[in-house]
Amino acid sequence: MDTILLTPGPTMILDEAREALGRPIIHHRTPQFQANIKEVIEGLQYVYQTKNDIYLMTCSGTGAMEATVCNLLSPGDEAITVNGGKFGERWAELCEAYDAKPTVIDVEWGQAVDPEKIREHLKANPKIKAVFVTLNETSTGVVSDIEAIGKVVAETDAVMIVDAVSGLGVVDCQTDKWKADMVVSGSHKGFMLPPGLAFISASEKAIKLINSSTNRRFYFDLRKSKKAFEATDTPFTPAIGIVIGMVESLRWMREKGIENLFAHYERLAKGCRAAAKALDLKLLADESCISNVLTAIHIPEGVDGGKLVKTMRDTHGVTCAGGQGHLKGKIIRIAHMGIVNEDHIIRCLETFELVLKEMGYSFTDQAGVNAAKAVFNS
Amino acid sequence: MDTILLTPGPTMILDEAREALGRPIIHHRTPQFQANIKEVIEGLQYVYQTKNDIYLMTCSGTGAMEATVCNLLSPGDEAITVNGGKFGERWAELCEAYDAKPTVIDVEWGQAVDPEKIREHLKANPKIKAVFVTLNETSTGVVSDIEAIGKVVAETDAVMIVDAVSGLGVVDCQTDKWKADMVVSGSHKGFMLPPGLAFISASEKAIKLINSSTNRRFYFDLRKSKKAFEATDTPFTPAIGIVIGMVESLRWMREKGIENLFAHYERLAKGCRAAAKALDLKLLADESCISNVLTAIHIPEGVDGGKLVKTMRDTHGVTCAGGQGHLKGKIIRIAHMGIVNEDHIIRCLETFELVLKEMGYSFTDQAGVNAAKAVFNS
Repeated sequence: MDTILLTPGPTMILDEAREALGRPIIHHRTPQFQANIKEVIEGLQYVYQTKNDIYLMTCSGTGAMEATVCNLLSPGDEAITVNGGKFGERWAELCEAYDAKPTVIDVEWGQAVDPEKIREHLKANPKIKAVFVTLNETSTGVVSDIEAIGKVVAETDAVMIVDAVSGLGVVDCQTDKWKADMVVSGSHKGFMLPPGLAFISASEKAIKLINSSTNRRFYFDLRKSKKAFEATDTPFTPAIGIVIGMVESLRWMREKGIENLFAHYERLAKGCRAAAKALDLKLLADESCISNVLTAIHIPEGVDGGKLVKTMRDTHGVTCAGGQGHLKGKIIRIAHMGIVNEDHIIRCLETFELVLKEMGYSFTDQAGVNAAKAVFNS
Repeated sequence: MDTILLTPGPTMILDEAREALGRPIIHHRTPQFQANIKEVIEGLQYVYQTKNDIYLMTCSGTGAMEATVCNLLSPGDEAITVNGGKFGERWAELCEAYDAKPTVIDVEWGQAVDPEKIREHLKANPKIKAVFVTLNETSTGVVSDIEAIGKVVAETDAVMIVDAVSGLGVVDCQTDKWKADMVVSGSHKGFMLPPGLAFISASEKAIKLINSSTNRRFYFDLRKSKKAFEATDTPFTPAIGIVIGMVESLRWMREKGIENLFAHYERLAKGCRAAAKALDLKLLADESCISNVLTAIHIPEGVDGGKLVKTMRDTHGVTCAGGQGHLKGKIIRIAHMGIVNEDHIIRCLETFELVLKEMGYSFTDQAGVNAAKAVFNS
């Protein structure tokens, strides 16, 4: 059975990258590999829309998120985090792990944070040093208004750090124009590669803070990363294979053009939303902040969402994600990023309908599929 | 030109693992991937010769070394490290980064630490909580007597932590029998895979200390790793591709049998040593502690070692490593681990002789190559 993977990370790997991953390895202290690093950094700066430094880290997205926290803050420092999903929560957990004091803005899962709320907190507490936000909240399919938050934060001495692990290269993220001081991403979402390599951009404002943190750190010490960046190197042995795969992914992304990719993913997202509506199923994310990275759909009452996702995967070869936290078993998350195309989405929706019907939910046959097709053909 | 890689990390990738790395990716929260984790842990326990927990970490070897330091020690805690090469030095740097107090035993590069020295320090200072040692010092090609050090440490309350990043699967390391409380290794040396995945074994004695450290940590928090280990899972998104590659590497290693691999690498090492002797070149490591992982050979006076290694690589497609630290330009390091065989070593020695001759060193043609062949044919 030909299987497809429509989870919000990992994503299906680009064919050219798969070929690169299977190549004989080269040593990392060679001019050949240095040329790869150079091309990857330049490609990332294109996708990040930045002239800032970009540091390559061999770790998962969480490792890179931790690096921003432990390099920017010192114990006792104050910060703002937004709790509107599993990955927003992680920012607060990371701050707490480093004895920083996060002011947590609670947001209902499915909603985005109001930038004015952040403004109020920054006004009320000028000691806040950092505002940690999420571009695309992977657990809910909500996209935050980073541009508006960036404006608010830029008026203060605080820095804005964006978790763009699942959003970068899929939805717009204008690092420089939106004044994002640090943006974190990883290889296994929009970049169509296995997990294991993460990236962090750093503005001048961020670098100043990095140099003043008193936290103990070594592998995640971004002062070492900056030094390596300036030498087109990495401070420790990097995930060589993934770096070489990134050369291929970034060539593909530059060739397509990020604006065209954003438009493509938007079309796929609109198809999924139309399908949900036609099946009379509710979307988790509010219309005002719904993301083009993935679509989270409520499973109808009486249907076991966990079993549904499992059946789609094990019987039909279509892997989507279920819900996390309190949404476990209650939603399906269909990702439309990387190399996902209209045919993948149609196959996913056909399977979704088939299993929904088997599990007792009634609707007009092909209603969702046809609604998506109508969007794709328009 | 068909190129070969004889560096002490990364090493050439096993063909079956290359095929695995290029496969379509699967999601990590699936029964299929869980079966992979299970097989990898069992395979690692075979190579580690242990029944202890083994934690999978997505990072380089240094990241995993840091995890042992920041989980075992708290600020102010005392430890012993051995400074006889670049990676022994790293243990001290890591201790210092976490405000622990290392007693550094200085050893001439090329020599191994005397276990009695460790005994003296442990006797003199019962507050020492951890002894950090190196199985194979990659910068010098020296192997430590872990068995003897383990005996010394086991008589005290301290734990012994072994950097086996480049040694594991290449030379003997009997984790349980030698009472190694934590053993660190990585994917890109004896396991014939790209860098990006690291492993840590932990004894009961180590786990007690892990639970008492006051260091701030999150991604490297081995309490999270233990919990995940018990659920045949990883705490964060793992380097999926490398885990799947490890299934292939470990099958290959189990099929060959580690004792046979150790004997094979010993034969390759003996061939290299015989070649150096026949060429009238000095070995860096003392005969009493010379390693079978790699052979470090002094470049003769008047020959630029950096240029020699570069010419071998760029003109002849044979990549070896040069010297690190104060040995830069002064030695060549030929690794014989992973899939390296007699033919690779002969080609390397032929190239080494060719370039040595071009650079003005005189010797009997084929002297080194013939000496190695004599070892291989005996």
